[in-house]
Amino acid sequence: MFKKILIANRGEIALRVIRTCREMGIKTVAVYSTADKESLHVKFADEAVCIGKPASFDSYLNIPHIMAAAEITNADAIHPGYGFLAENARFAEICGEHEIKFIGPTPAMINSMGDKITAKETMIKAGVPVVPGGEGLLESLDEAKSMAKDVGYPIILKATAGGGGKGMRVVWEEADMERAYNTAKAEAGAAFKNDGIYMEKFVEEPRHIEIQVAGDQYGKVCHLSERDCSIQRRHQKLVEESPSPFMTPELRQRMGEAAIKAASAINYESVGTIEFLVDKHRNFYFMEMNTRIQVEHCVTEEVVNFDLIKEQIKIAAGDTISGLNYEPQGHAIECRINAEDPYNDFRPSPGRITVLHQPGGHGIRVDSHAYAGYTIPPYYDSMIAKIIAVARTREEAINTMHRALSEYVIEGIKTTIPFHLQLMKDERFRSGDFNTKFLESFKMV
Amino acid sequence: MFKKILIANRGEIALRVIRTCREMGIKTVAVYSTADKESLHVKFADEAVCIGKPASFDSYLNIPHIMAAAEITNADAIHPGYGFLAENARFAEICGEHEIKFIGPTPAMINSMGDKITAKETMIKAGVPVVPGGEGLLESLDEAKSMAKDVGYPIILKATAGGGGKGMRVVWEEADMERAYNTAKAEAGAAFKNDGIYMEKFVEEPRHIEIQVAGDQYGKVCHLSERDCSIQRRHQKLVEESPSPFMTPELRQRMGEAAIKAASAINYESVGTIEFLVDKHRNFYFMEMNTRIQVEHCVTEEVVNFDLIKEQIKIAAGDTISGLNYEPQGHAIECRINAEDPYNDFRPSPGRITVLHQPGGHGIRVDSHAYAGYTIPPYYDSMIAKIIAVARTREEAINTMHRALSEYVIEGIKTTIPFHLQLMKDERFRSGDFNTKFLESFKMV
Repeated sequence: MFKKILIANRGEIALRVIRTCREMGIKTVAVYSTADKESLHVKFADEAVCIGKPASFDSYLNIPHIMAAAEITNADAIHPGYGFLAENARFAEICGEHEIKFIGPTPAMINSMGDKITAKETMIKAGVPVVPGGEGLLESLDEAKSMAKDVGYPIILKATAGGGGKGMRVVWEEADMERAYNTAKAEAGAAFKNDGIYMEKFVEEPRHIEIQVAGDQYGKVCHLSERDCSIQRRHQKLVEESPSPFMTPELRQRMGEAAIKAASAINYESVGTIEFLVDKHRNFYFMEMNTRIQVEHCVTEEVVNFDLIKEQIKIAAGDTISGLNYEPQGHAIECRINAEDPYNDFRPSPGRITVLHQPGGHGIRVDSHAYAGYTIPPYYDSMIAKIIAVARTREEAINTMHRALSEYVIEGIKTTIPFHLQLMKDERFRSGDFNTKFLESFKMV
Repeated sequence: MFKKILIANRGEIALRVIRTCREMGIKTVAVYSTADKESLHVKFADEAVCIGKPASFDSYLNIPHIMAAAEITNADAIHPGYGFLAENARFAEICGEHEIKFIGPTPAMINSMGDKITAKETMIKAGVPVVPGGEGLLESLDEAKSMAKDVGYPIILKATAGGGGKGMRVVWEEADMERAYNTAKAEAGAAFKNDGIYMEKFVEEPRHIEIQVAGDQYGKVCHLSERDCSIQRRHQKLVEESPSPFMTPELRQRMGEAAIKAASAINYESVGTIEFLVDKHRNFYFMEMNTRIQVEHCVTEEVVNFDLIKEQIKIAAGDTISGLNYEPQGHAIECRINAEDPYNDFRPSPGRITVLHQPGGHGIRVDSHAYAGYTIPPYYDSMIAKIIAVARTREEAINTMHRALSEYVIEGIKTTIPFHLQLMKDERFRSGDFNTKFLESFKMV
């Protein structure tokens, strides 16, 4: 087992990794930018090394400085957390060159999933469903009609140079194709001076459901059930839960098998996540694989009763995953508490926390690097805490979460707590019948 | 279901009950003494009523004031917590006279277990093992020898007026009886001017193991596994865990059956606990029944995944316990954090908490009414927090607890955190091989 792990990250995930290292009897090295010298991960690590100025490029993305910190502290492994260098294959490679174990997959595995086109091809080869279509520009209306027959209606036409909905048309049946094809092309040409369009299967009422996987160095891969991350605002997840309220045992089996196929296709080693879009008919399509630990890993931990960071470290040290069995119990929900103003378009609200009182009690886990007197720097992401509620049922977990949020006191900054309080009482959220578009129509009251 | 519950208590248990009420959508009324007006249970309840001066007799034991508070707030039930009026049959009776539901057993059940002699007789009749002997003064050496044959060696002779070890002798075989009998009698006479002695089976290397039970109003009783509370200092529990490291499946089955017999013998309704002494040969003996929720109920909650306060409230409202099934998972440990100085004979250390940072992360639950700026009054018990660690194994739970304790910051007062930190690293504690005498030889370093 490793003797000393350097954590190439900050905030709650750095603290998260330090906690597990302490429990495993492994020494820790924190690295920090000058903006983070009062951060909790610095206080709680056994050693701490300043690696540069506040800008991420100068510190948390500064590979030479991080490697120097690892060398001078004699760390034998590096945990990258999420974000920053977590999916940087070159960084993983440099760790290897320095004979420092990168706690994660190999550079080749990171690369194979980092490039979207390669990843999609790999998945198709492995028999994992991907969103049909999308493999080239449409040359003519006839080609569009013929491809739509293969893909199956509804389909969506998208501008290759596009964005913001321009040049985008959903087509529900062949009779509407001609008109849609022509307007999409015209709109794209006018908006982007490029009228190239392509076709994809239109995923109806999509939910974001992902499968947690783990693989060891000996070719064994398992999955640890799903997380539903459909509560998103501009592609940013705000709430995650496990199990998904949309899940059926049959769908879980199919998605679990597909996730294992996906990870096995690249002989995946470490913990990782296969993200899928699931439509209202319970068809699912591979979106991407995250070759790292995710923010929302905690909800899985709570229902399967495993410490995923510990498993990740053990895998990196050469352990098998044979002890990692999947026996989910109850329901877990996570709310990301961000220093943002939900009444003001979620505008970031960095600053000094003057008063802090964290919730507690039955069914509540708090992962946070915030403390009273801590000043949130403006340079990094705005998440300051994750609250995880666990109960026997989804309804109870939601009630426990609401209770915990209502006793959470943070003064000095704005937070997303009011948003979460309102969401936990929202009938549509409570019903479980929502998709990734849900928050577009959600208004703060 | 109840609409409004008054909590006739203070501190963490008042907060604990408020939390569950909130999750169940039940309004809450806090009562408080003038010393507690800044207490968290007052802040978090929907309503709060001052019931008197700091001394418990004037406030938390003041039945007329509590009943008046219930009447003016229109509460339809009272939760007594633990301590104070929780096992006061007259209080339960008065609640009934006012048509306010007492959330606990009936006055008759409280009485039947409140009187130790009646309780022991009830247990013998129900076939629950009690410590043999002890039922009368010994008239002669011959009687002592004859009784010892029935009870079985080793036995202990005790002064009926005694205490502090005076007039107390353990006898391992008949050859030693004469001498022990004579010196015990002489010592008792000299120390207490009363040379009456009685005999009990000597429980070798006793562990305190208790079984959590629950019964509904329809005669159904179940048990929810055990808690080991052998880590005691002068009969005060400091650490509790579930399961017991001393337990075997066979012993659990025998003790569980005995606990169900015990509770069934009085048609017990509500949650309660049967406390047993267990000797090194895994013989167990009924000590007493607590007809209330206990401080250490949380470790059971964590391994069986039920909210016991919720179950208690549901039983009082007339629900059956049919949904309450016993499926323990993992290992939970609780440390009681008291405002006491472990380096100074655990002397109470009330005062103002100037800085507070609570632990968190995977496997950590915090139940506490403490907050930064809170002044602990000197009038009540000194417990300010319970930390509960949960993991798959006992060793992992101990490591998680140590990690959490090491990040717990409380300034302004002394606490028992250093004691717990040392205990979690103690080889004998970690081995699981200890009994209720263990702390007598434990020294702070």
